[in-house]
Amino acid sequence: MNDSAALSGIEYLQGLIRDRTLSPMGAAMKMALVAVSDGRAEVEAFPSEKFYNQQRRIHGGYLATLLDTALGCAVQTKLAQNVGYGTIELKINYVRKLVAETGRLVCVGTVLHAGRTMLTAEAKVAGPDGKLYAHGTGTFLVYP
Amino acid sequence: MNDSAALSGIEYLQGLIRDRTLSPMGAAMKMALVAVSDGRAEVEAFPSEKFYNQQRRIHGGYLATLLDTALGCAVQTKLAQNVGYGTIELKINYVRKLVAETGRLVCVGTVLHAGRTMLTAEAKVAGPDGKLYAHGTGTFLVYP
Amino acid sequence: MNDSAALSGIEYLQGLIRDRTLSPMGAAMKMALVAVSDGRAEVEAFPSEKFYNQQRRIHGGYLATLLDTALGCAVQTKLAQNVGYGTIELKINYVRKLVAETGRLVCVGTVLHAGRTMLTAEAKVAGPDGKLYAHGTGTFLVYP
Amino acid sequence: MNDSAALSGIEYLQGLIRDRTLSPMGAAMKMALVAVSDGRAEVEAFPSEKFYNQQRRIHGGYLATLLDTALGCAVQTKLAQNVGYGTIELKINYVRKLVAETGRLVCVGTVLHAGRTMLTAEAKVAGPDGKLYAHGTGTFLVYP
Repeated sequence: MNDSAALSGIEYLQGLIRDRTLSPMGAAMKMALVAVSDGRAEVEAFPSEKFYNQQRRIHGGYLATLLDTALGCAVQTKLAQNVGYGTIELKINYVRKLVAETGRLVCVGTVLHAGRTMLTAEAKVAGPDGKLYAHGTGTFLVYP
Repeated sequence: MNDSAALSGIEYLQGLIRDRTLSPMGAAMKMALVAVSDGRAEVEAFPSEKFYNQQRRIHGGYLATLLDTALGCAVQTKLAQNVGYGTIELKINYVRKLVAETGRLVCVGTVLHAGRTMLTAEAKVAGPDGKLYAHGTGTFLVYP
Repeated sequence: MNDSAALSGIEYLQGLIRDRTLSPMGAAMKMALVAVSDGRAEVEAFPSEKFYNQQRRIHGGYLATLLDTALGCAVQTKLAQNVGYGTIELKINYVRKLVAETGRLVCVGTVLHAGRTMLTAEAKVAGPDGKLYAHGTGTFLVYP
Repeated sequence: MNDSAALSGIEYLQGLIRDRTLSPMGAAMKMALVAVSDGRAEVEAFPSEKFYNQQRRIHGGYLATLLDTALGCAVQTKLAQNVGYGTIELKINYVRKLVAETGRLVCVGTVLHAGRTMLTAEAKVAGPDGKLYAHGTGTFLVYP
């Protein structure tokens, strides 16, 4: 019972939302999956000074983690649960200064192309003020 | 005394190596600056299961953090210490599966173009076996 | 009279649509500007076998030209006509095989971030069947 | 005789050098393959005002064509001649103003990762003065 291989990607992700668990990295970075639908995933993040770079701004790697997570979950909504996949390429634009005081971020990932073996997606990170802080795209391969 | 604004970027980074401190994010991710020279920076990282994604591989955001750090430090070797700068764009290729057992990673960042206001750099991440795990490029702007 | 420096970027681009002229490269590649509005530009292209690569598909550089053009014109709608600007970085995903028989392509560029000195935009290329053939993003700097 | 399917990718490319033919797009853009070796390809280009953008500089699409060509040929040196492959993703940094007077460009592409189905490469464009004008990376998939 509870045959996880029989779940679709969306059903699997809905379980992660219900259980408030995403991944070890997600937990370390204070990120959580908020919503999923066909070709779309929404991830929230709570940046803090723990994630600062030398210049006392949120590290570019923090936003990269958030974008990669939202992109990957969006892609996973197009797959069966037991299908392996991975990011082969990630591209990010940082467009606004981000500090701990900025507060809760929401990143929405959207699939642009869903091929049999290659999928691409885009994602955008907004702050509580609705302003865009970063955007990116990713390319994913499905493993046989 | 010890007027940090009077230091060059390289001198400032040499201080970070000596003090074994990089940034809060660097500490959280088990990364350290190992060496710097003109236009070049070397950062080491110790990935562990804490940084796993859902698929029990090292999260793409972990490698993005490592690459952004090495790229940024390479760029900083070209600047005076008191000059502000930031990543405006980061691009990563993930070319090999990375798990905790892979062990210590070394990422070398190298400046490709050093203009007055815009700098670009490339970086490569190798494992203990010398194999390439990821590579990337970044674009940086100097703030007035 | 007709002081072009006094035109806005949009007015200048509207002139290009009216005069059916875009640039020497646009003419060589059979591309034309079709529509502009605030933060948006639409460019059409007529690929043919002249633009084939060795593998008898439309060359990646052809789509790069189309995407760069739509991104740049979208950015220009946010600027005054006499302001210099340039692409500093371009990223493209090729998601579907493109041959001469595919026919007329339409590329829509949309500004994502319009800062004082840096602007970013995204663009998507669709065929006559409405399918996505390529997508991309670009980063632009305004020259003083 | 002359069974092209029996050629390696390098042998096939050496034939293109000998015959001074690259592709229809290469001819249209005044580009030629100059040298190939294992994991490396060198392409020359002669930019002129025909390839100008609105701002009377060489169009970003021209350099994208040059980079994609050198990246693709470098990748092809790792393949058998009859193996299909294609660019799935291309990323370019434009770092220096390029005009017709700049003269002959040389772009060297180098493979970074050669997997069974995915290959990545980097390329750099230099002018007659040895200065860097653009650099980029690409991701390629091999078709079964």
